Amino acid sequence: MTREVFASIRDYMLHMADNAAHDYLHVYRVLYQAMKIAENYEVDRDVLIAACLLHDIGRKAQLEDKRLCHAVEGGKLAYAFMQALGWEEERCRHIWDCVTTHRFRSDNPPKTLEAKILFDADKLDVTGALGIARSLAYEGQMGEPLYRVEEDFQIDRDFSKEAPPSFLKEYNFKLIKLYDRFYTPEAARIAQKRKALMEAYYAELLEEIDISDMAQILEAQE
Amino acid sequence: MTREVFASIRDYMLHMADNAAHDYLHVYRVLYQAMKIAENYEVDRDVLIAACLLHDIGRKAQLEDKRLCHAVEGGKLAYAFMQALGWEEERCRHIWDCVTTHRFRSDNPPKTLEAKILFDADKLDVTGALGIARSLAYEGQMGEPLYRVEEDFQIDRDFSKEAPPSFLKEYNFKLIKLYDRFYTPEAARIAQKRKALMEAYYAELLEEIDISDMAQILEAQE
Repeated sequence: MTREVFASIRDYMLHMADNAAHDYLHVYRVLYQAMKIAENYEVDRDVLIAACLLHDIGRKAQLEDKRLCHAVEGGKLAYAFMQALGWEEERCRHIWDCVTTHRFRSDNPPKTLEAKILFDADKLDVTGALGIARSLAYEGQMGEPLYRVEEDFQIDRDFSKEAPPSFLKEYNFKLIKLYDRFYTPEAARIAQKRKALMEAYYAELLEEIDISDMAQILEAQE
Repeated sequence: MTREVFASIRDYMLHMADNAAHDYLHVYRVLYQAMKIAENYEVDRDVLIAACLLHDIGRKAQLEDKRLCHAVEGGKLAYAFMQALGWEEERCRHIWDCVTTHRFRSDNPPKTLEAKILFDADKLDVTGALGIARSLAYEGQMGEPLYRVEEDFQIDRDFSKEAPPSFLKEYNFKLIKLYDRFYTPEAARIAQKRKALMEAYYAELLEEIDISDMAQILEAQE
């Protein structure tokens, strides 16, 4: 891929990016990890680069209409954009397919190698220190709390699907469950390497927020 | 302090709380740490409890008018509220004083033991895993990025006062500098214990976001 073509696709991505958690830095990290994973395979690198750059361009549509899926919308947009750039039909369709199947909660799993690498690279960005950072930034953006406490100062440990949102719920409901869901062994290995820090962070956070004996401490004053 | 009085002050605090980073969970943690530190001293515990509960009630005023200082505004509000509760003048003034001097960047440092304990307990909440969590949530709330990259994919390492906001700047400009600014040895010890995790987290994050050889990787494809 020439620098000019890269710049065209990147500029379209930047034009479509507009929120904090899934911004252009995320896109660059996904592209980078995908390229590293791809070193171990025979892939269509141009398709992979384009698919990585464009994988989240449907976010804006999803933000504006919650019923839409950003992967499905992004796939269509990516196809149209690559066609307009003059790429051949087969590769445009391949990029469409990669973008459509990159989503985690989907009954439409990635099938081609390029699609699996994009999927894995995107999921890597929710592991380790980055997973924590992006989740916390998202909670802040949405005005959601770190955790919740009961009237008696005990931490609310209902992390079921129905529980109200919080970082502790996100960690237990999603972050901790990602590590065995990779398609490529390279991504699984990077994720596993990042897991220890994430768990250490969570354990320390739990310790720091523990005020479970507050009632006794306050009553001891009386 | 009776449960009824505690509940009255707490309810006023809850009424005045309205943002994510400095919410009631922060207030409870500050109260908890202050009580733990106070176990080593002879203090007016009721003054300390009231001052902890009320220390951030001036945030709303500061949010509405950036020229106002939440510590100064909160001090006045706390004084008026405690007077209305019927507490004696001297203790109301003491609480006013504690709240006014709790702010980090201030030329009005805490003077009484109770004020110093509140100051330390409040600062503890910006150390360790909590410091990271609260900073990241704040960046998300403000729409600020984790970090910035240059056109050539290198991380922008200008963390001076004038640099644009990001989590990396906040870490280098503020979080890392807090650890030797405590009044009580108890708080300094807790902070020191939390520091290792914070540094480990930051080091791992730097590693995960490093895409400095992206240009070479992309050019290798051509």
